[in-house]
Amino acid sequence: MKTISLTQVQKEQVQMEGAKGAFKQLVISKADGSPTFSFRVFTVEPGGHTPFHKHASEHLNYVISGEGCLVGEKGKEHEIREGHFALVLPNEKHQYRNTSKDQPLLLICAVPKEFE
Amino acid sequence: MKTISLTQVQKEQVQMEGAKGAFKQLVISKADGSPTFSFRVFTVEPGGHTPFHKHASEHLNYVISGEGCLVGEKGKEHEIREGHFALVLPNEKHQYRNTSKDQPLLLICAVPKEFE
Repeated sequence: MKTISLTQVQKEQVQMEGAKGAFKQLVISKADGSPTFSFRVFTVEPGGHTPFHKHASEHLNYVISGEGCLVGEKGKEHEIREGHFALVLPNEKHQYRNTSKDQPLLLICAVPKEFE
Repeated sequence: MKTISLTQVQKEQVQMEGAKGAFKQLVISKADGSPTFSFRVFTVEPGGHTPFHKHASEHLNYVISGEGCLVGEKGKEHEIREGHFALVLPNEKHQYRNTSKDQPLLLICAVPKEFE
C-alpha cells in the first residue's frame, strides 16, 4: 500500500515533438509494484498541448482542474473540464489542449503499466 | 473515444456487508470497450466507509474531494485527502473511511476490467 500527494511527485516537461507547455508526473507505476496500470498526471499550460498522435495503449483520463479540449480523429474537439472523464481507445489519434487563458489544465492519464 | 461528466453517471449504494453510506458510479469500464482497466468513483458520506476486505484485484485511487483514511493491514490508517493518490496491492486488506463531519469523500477507484 502506498499513498502519496501529487505535490510530492517530480514534474518533468514533456519533450516529445508536438508538445508545448506540457508537464508530466508519474505518480503510480510498475516501479511501485502496480500489477496492471499506471497513473500519470499531465499539466498543460494555457495555450499548451500534448502531441497529436496515436499508439497501441489506451488512455483513461480524469480532469482534476481547468478546461480544454480532447482532440480526436479528424480533429474533432471534445470539450473537457474539471470533473470530466475520457477514454481514448488504442490507436485513436488524440491530443489534450488547454483552451483557457489563465489556468492550467490538470488531468490524470492512466495507461497500461507496459506503456510506462 | 468517450468523454463523460461524473454528474451524468448513475450512482448506486454499495450493498456489500461492511459498507455504510457508500455509493458507487461505474464511469468507464469494459462496457465502453476499455481494454485493460475500469474507472469507478466512490462517494462516502461523513462517518461512512467501504468494507474492510481484500481481493485479488489491485486498486489505484485518486481523491477528488474530501478527507478520510485508507485503512490497511493490521488496521493501520493512512490519511488521505483531495489531491492524494493511493495504490492498494492485490490481496491487501483495505477500507476507505470518511473521517470528516460534514463533507463527502469522493475518490476514483480504478480496477482491472475483469473486476467489473
